[in-house]
Amino acid sequence: MSKLKLGMVGGGQGAFIGSVHRIASRIDDHYELVAGSLASNPEVAHSSAKELGIAEDRSYSTYLEMAEKESNIENGIDVVAIVTPNHLHYPIAEAFIMKGIHVICDKPLTHNLEDAEKFFECVKNSSALFALTHNYTGYPMVRQAREMCHNGSIGKLRVIQVEYAQDWLTLPIENEGQKQASWRTDPSKAGMGGSIGDIGSHAFNLVDFITGAKLTELCADISSFVEGRKNDDNAHVLLRYENGVKGMLWSSQVAPGNENALKIRIYGDKGGLEWEQENPNYLRVDIFGEAKKIIRRAGNETIDVAGRVTRIPPGHPEGYLEGFANIYSDFAKQIIAFKKNQKIEDELLLVPSIEDGLKGVKFISKVVESGLGGSKWLKF
Amino acid sequence: MSKLKLGMVGGGQGAFIGSVHRIASRIDDHYELVAGSLASNPEVAHSSAKELGIAEDRSYSTYLEMAEKESNIENGIDVVAIVTPNHLHYPIAEAFIMKGIHVICDKPLTHNLEDAEKFFECVKNSSALFALTHNYTGYPMVRQAREMCHNGSIGKLRVIQVEYAQDWLTLPIENEGQKQASWRTDPSKAGMGGSIGDIGSHAFNLVDFITGAKLTELCADISSFVEGRKNDDNAHVLLRYENGVKGMLWSSQVAPGNENALKIRIYGDKGGLEWEQENPNYLRVDIFGEAKKIIRRAGNETIDVAGRVTRIPPGHPEGYLEGFANIYSDFAKQIIAFKKNQKIEDELLLVPSIEDGLKGVKFISKVVESGLGGSKWLKF
Amino acid sequence: MSKLKLGMVGGGQGAFIGSVHRIASRIDDHYELVAGSLASNPEVAHSSAKELGIAEDRSYSTYLEMAEKESNIENGIDVVAIVTPNHLHYPIAEAFIMKGIHVICDKPLTHNLEDAEKFFECVKNSSALFALTHNYTGYPMVRQAREMCHNGSIGKLRVIQVEYAQDWLTLPIENEGQKQASWRTDPSKAGMGGSIGDIGSHAFNLVDFITGAKLTELCADISSFVEGRKNDDNAHVLLRYENGVKGMLWSSQVAPGNENALKIRIYGDKGGLEWEQENPNYLRVDIFGEAKKIIRRAGNETIDVAGRVTRIPPGHPEGYLEGFANIYSDFAKQIIAFKKNQKIEDELLLVPSIEDGLKGVKFISKVVESGLGGSKWLKF
Amino acid sequence: MSKLKLGMVGGGQGAFIGSVHRIASRIDDHYELVAGSLASNPEVAHSSAKELGIAEDRSYSTYLEMAEKESNIENGIDVVAIVTPNHLHYPIAEAFIMKGIHVICDKPLTHNLEDAEKFFECVKNSSALFALTHNYTGYPMVRQAREMCHNGSIGKLRVIQVEYAQDWLTLPIENEGQKQASWRTDPSKAGMGGSIGDIGSHAFNLVDFITGAKLTELCADISSFVEGRKNDDNAHVLLRYENGVKGMLWSSQVAPGNENALKIRIYGDKGGLEWEQENPNYLRVDIFGEAKKIIRRAGNETIDVAGRVTRIPPGHPEGYLEGFANIYSDFAKQIIAFKKNQKIEDELLLVPSIEDGLKGVKFISKVVESGLGGSKWLKF
Repeated sequence: MSKLKLGMVGGGQGAFIGSVHRIASRIDDHYELVAGSLASNPEVAHSSAKELGIAEDRSYSTYLEMAEKESNIENGIDVVAIVTPNHLHYPIAEAFIMKGIHVICDKPLTHNLEDAEKFFECVKNSSALFALTHNYTGYPMVRQAREMCHNGSIGKLRVIQVEYAQDWLTLPIENEGQKQASWRTDPSKAGMGGSIGDIGSHAFNLVDFITGAKLTELCADISSFVEGRKNDDNAHVLLRYENGVKGMLWSSQVAPGNENALKIRIYGDKGGLEWEQENPNYLRVDIFGEAKKIIRRAGNETIDVAGRVTRIPPGHPEGYLEGFANIYSDFAKQIIAFKKNQKIEDELLLVPSIEDGLKGVKFISKVVESGLGGSKWLKF
Repeated sequence: MSKLKLGMVGGGQGAFIGSVHRIASRIDDHYELVAGSLASNPEVAHSSAKELGIAEDRSYSTYLEMAEKESNIENGIDVVAIVTPNHLHYPIAEAFIMKGIHVICDKPLTHNLEDAEKFFECVKNSSALFALTHNYTGYPMVRQAREMCHNGSIGKLRVIQVEYAQDWLTLPIENEGQKQASWRTDPSKAGMGGSIGDIGSHAFNLVDFITGAKLTELCADISSFVEGRKNDDNAHVLLRYENGVKGMLWSSQVAPGNENALKIRIYGDKGGLEWEQENPNYLRVDIFGEAKKIIRRAGNETIDVAGRVTRIPPGHPEGYLEGFANIYSDFAKQIIAFKKNQKIEDELLLVPSIEDGLKGVKFISKVVESGLGGSKWLKF
Repeated sequence: MSKLKLGMVGGGQGAFIGSVHRIASRIDDHYELVAGSLASNPEVAHSSAKELGIAEDRSYSTYLEMAEKESNIENGIDVVAIVTPNHLHYPIAEAFIMKGIHVICDKPLTHNLEDAEKFFECVKNSSALFALTHNYTGYPMVRQAREMCHNGSIGKLRVIQVEYAQDWLTLPIENEGQKQASWRTDPSKAGMGGSIGDIGSHAFNLVDFITGAKLTELCADISSFVEGRKNDDNAHVLLRYENGVKGMLWSSQVAPGNENALKIRIYGDKGGLEWEQENPNYLRVDIFGEAKKIIRRAGNETIDVAGRVTRIPPGHPEGYLEGFANIYSDFAKQIIAFKKNQKIEDELLLVPSIEDGLKGVKFISKVVESGLGGSKWLKF
Repeated sequence: MSKLKLGMVGGGQGAFIGSVHRIASRIDDHYELVAGSLASNPEVAHSSAKELGIAEDRSYSTYLEMAEKESNIENGIDVVAIVTPNHLHYPIAEAFIMKGIHVICDKPLTHNLEDAEKFFECVKNSSALFALTHNYTGYPMVRQAREMCHNGSIGKLRVIQVEYAQDWLTLPIENEGQKQASWRTDPSKAGMGGSIGDIGSHAFNLVDFITGAKLTELCADISSFVEGRKNDDNAHVLLRYENGVKGMLWSSQVAPGNENALKIRIYGDKGGLEWEQENPNYLRVDIFGEAKKIIRRAGNETIDVAGRVTRIPPGHPEGYLEGFANIYSDFAKQIIAFKKNQKIEDELLLVPSIEDGLKGVKFISKVVESGLGGSKWLKF
């Protein structure tokens, strides 16, 4: 199998998520990074490209040049990974999509709803494939949880508790030039959502992915605890889903001791499920009336849908990069099928889509609207 | 030291919390159970009394008779424990208080706000001492958490996450004659709060006890997932405290896998604390920028206020009954001081008071009001 | 039911285990402490007695006087609790047994094998009942583990891993007058076993209680890491049981971070069990080929034998004192049956016996013999 | 930086560890797999090669052919990964080393001591570089533990508890054609050690890596619980190290519920450390007299030596593959330095070496010798 040719926009020296994307693309060996426009500063872009072994003539100063040239050369890139701050996702994606190049884009989709809607139309009106790296859906035990929700293991859904807490913005580090903090707390780059955009959107997406429940209303109380911070650094959201399902979502980047604490608990009338991103190899399952069970990745009582996305035996822990790689690898399978004009099998559709992206931005937007507007209930 | 003479109303055969009170009263040997009106059915009352070694002539058919007689005999009871369903707390307490007998009462204080206010006045206008068994405040590591909040260890308070989840009402067992379920889901006995009254009130009280933060507003979404159930079996509440502190409270009795999962997390601008009732001997402490610490009951880095209420060395776990006993024992010290006309030392004032009781009923009442009234924000 | 009259030898001011015995005796209300010879120093003895509400004329200066008098007065004690250093257990017990007074004695039985054998004969030749407080056998989930071993849940036994680690003797505190450390590291009082006697004997007993496996050989490597300490503060023991079962035992009092870490793991050809004293409400169960299960005290899938010794619902943690109380309460039932000339039901025989005591001292003695004799294998 | 050219011997379809090596080699992008002799059956070898994108003319039927050809072509492989059953490690390695090709070899080094000694000489007499994939030493928190042992954080070493338990050989699956079980339980391929060779050697190596303690004597009790199994499936070993340090090692492949439970605890006179492979992002640290600390990978209080081998922020868990990749990447740095004739920096010497390999085989051999010879103490 020959590898897909991958390009990258963003992700140069000093960035965080770009390197995660690169490792994720390598783990299962479906991609080869061959081109990039790795930073807005051309000098940084080229020196980053050199470090990564990208040929000089395929290191571009601008993404427009890259889209133009890569679509015109033989063996140009099949797919581009967009790993820039949020406000650039849409214009960059559009440039590549117009050239028929597939796109894998970091989340959230965009920094505002208007762009998200344009982005959605752009993808829908093109034949290019699109993937959003809601990477937490790639964890095997998240897949197991989804299947157990869908197959009735926990009965009729009732209550959803989801939270995503971090502590790295406890102090005003954006004022000290920390690059990640600077753009992520800047509404013009990150969008109107602070913690709710950066991580709350992951939490919302995880509920959506696992349960499929349809959000109908929400009520949000958002705060900026650090003086001078423009966006929320803590958000409390009440959720109402179809069929009377109720939920609570907490996102925070000012909760000391929480490194990357994404956690979901789901309760139905027959049982409950619990999963934590920081210990992702375990799914806690409680069937009402039975002892608590811990199902372990690749271990006893795991099901196919989870086994499909693990690489190594039980007890050999997989982590964040492997879960991320599952998104990349499933997307590769979609692209390869597309290139061969093959029908894509259903299970591959677990790749987070443009619909997920639009829904996520709408969620962020509604939370901020509720939060800034007296914390009223809003229809979703 | 001679023991205090204890009477009990409620707690006969088939009851749950009465036996907990009795054990709690014995652990530190400050009380002797000598009288009771243990059930509304006199036959059950007397046979229960016999089982417990209460003399025949001090087993009463009604609490009124008991209050009357015990206040008139030599060596009559010093204090009465009230362990009946909620709607009876106030009339019973009043009867004993009027006779100058001290009262230790189960929570919540009453089944409605009107009674709670009368109860408050009644206690305030009497010289009888009063204690409410918000027993979770008796755990050593809760005392440690309180002190660490108050002494600035975690800085200025920002965010409070509290939850109390159970699963025993997942099915409609109140329809099958389960005695505990029957009265606890009956608004005429339990009051208007279901899960929020039975357990949410403990969660609210725990926040109050540990942080001292003053609640100013709340917004509640309450549900009755089990068909036909009149009171909530799940409540989601957003909380706003003075000084911009934000909180979230979840109470549920339909969350499979949760036995008695009271959990609190508190975040300030310098650190965070986490405590779980099911593993009460541990307090997780995160000072921002330092490694996570686990402070263990009676172990390294525990402070006096916690050491004062432990009995055995670290690693020898104490549990629910010991925490409960701490309330009983502190109350005994109050009573003994009172009898000796001594000033009561400050630290003893950690016994949950009539103010706590009134505040708790007000909380339940406001949550139900918000929940039934379109989940609007209400001033507290 | 009238309470049993309890006397105590040892356990005065400054002692540790005496107060544990007293609380344990009170929890289920089967005993009333009415007499004592609480310290070797009569002044300490009497002031301790006063503090505990023991009548002046039943506070004795010597245990001999106490045995003599209590056996001759009306309503003299039914049973005596012996909570002195190990070397005094036997002479004291003998004095009371000769008077027909039942004995509940702290472990290990004696400080040497010679005394243990005499003690055994003494009990066997008397009609007095005897209990040894191997209190860890009183935990509900230990009872559950025992039953699951015996009923074939984990199949044919293969491997046993047991350990009991503490850290309180990491430094030479016996040289600084710490009372507990002083006698427990003094061979003339504690016996030849240091950590192996004080805590290793509990570990050995726990294996015996849960599995019933018969030890046939052992090989021990013992150390005294703290300079000048005469007895072991760390012991490593290989164990061979009948039918090819193999085991490992580790006891240590110099393992920093371990407070009271008694832990047992048992493996058969169909499954495994794991229990930890510091979190005693949980039993981890692995049936080969199935997901890991956590059975919780009083919760789903607990069995009668465990339910019998719990007092409160699941999620309301019980601890060390409650487990200890189970030994006291079962022994009370034995004594009451004895007084009524009733046959004692089988299940009551879970009270640790004089046989257990003798076996324990023999174990300590063999470990020390192997450890001091070149760490050779010895027949048990 | 151009990538190193990697070849592989073994690791074709149906193998386990080969694919782990391949992923590990890709994660940090230092290697490119360009040649292989992937199976003893040429058909399987070639079809495996095709699947992996290895050019047809560089898929070899025998390792001898591969060594010969690759050493003679331009851009032949720099390094070969040997991932066959143990008995083939040495002859294969020798073939490549003789051609000056560097070797990265799975553990244990060989299936017997004789070969191990020859292997050692062979490497020592060549200029080829050698690495052994004792991959667990690659985990960041293992590196942190090592540094904390070496820098005195836990004081003078006293006690080491190490264990490695699995359950996959609980039943006689080697009789049912399970490929991994078949060779790993076959003395002619795996060597005389069963569990002690397959996993116990990792445990021994981990102690060595972290503490640097020198083993002087051991005493082993080994068992084959499954009927007909020739090698041990459970081993209990007492360890004596220089300076009075004592240790215990348990390896088992018949312990139901244990997936890959490698765990080490180390105690000195100032503190203790605890690490578990299944949750590798945490190191538990107990400084005597202080609260328990949990140091998290890349989080607060991690030190450089650990930070050097992590890729992503705290809370984003890394796992087995990332730890394995650290060995590959450090070895790449060694090779690159070698090619440039540069002095290799000290820290790179953490790559497990031929000395480690020889020591490991000697350990296996001594354990088996003791175990089969009456479980006597043997000098190491």
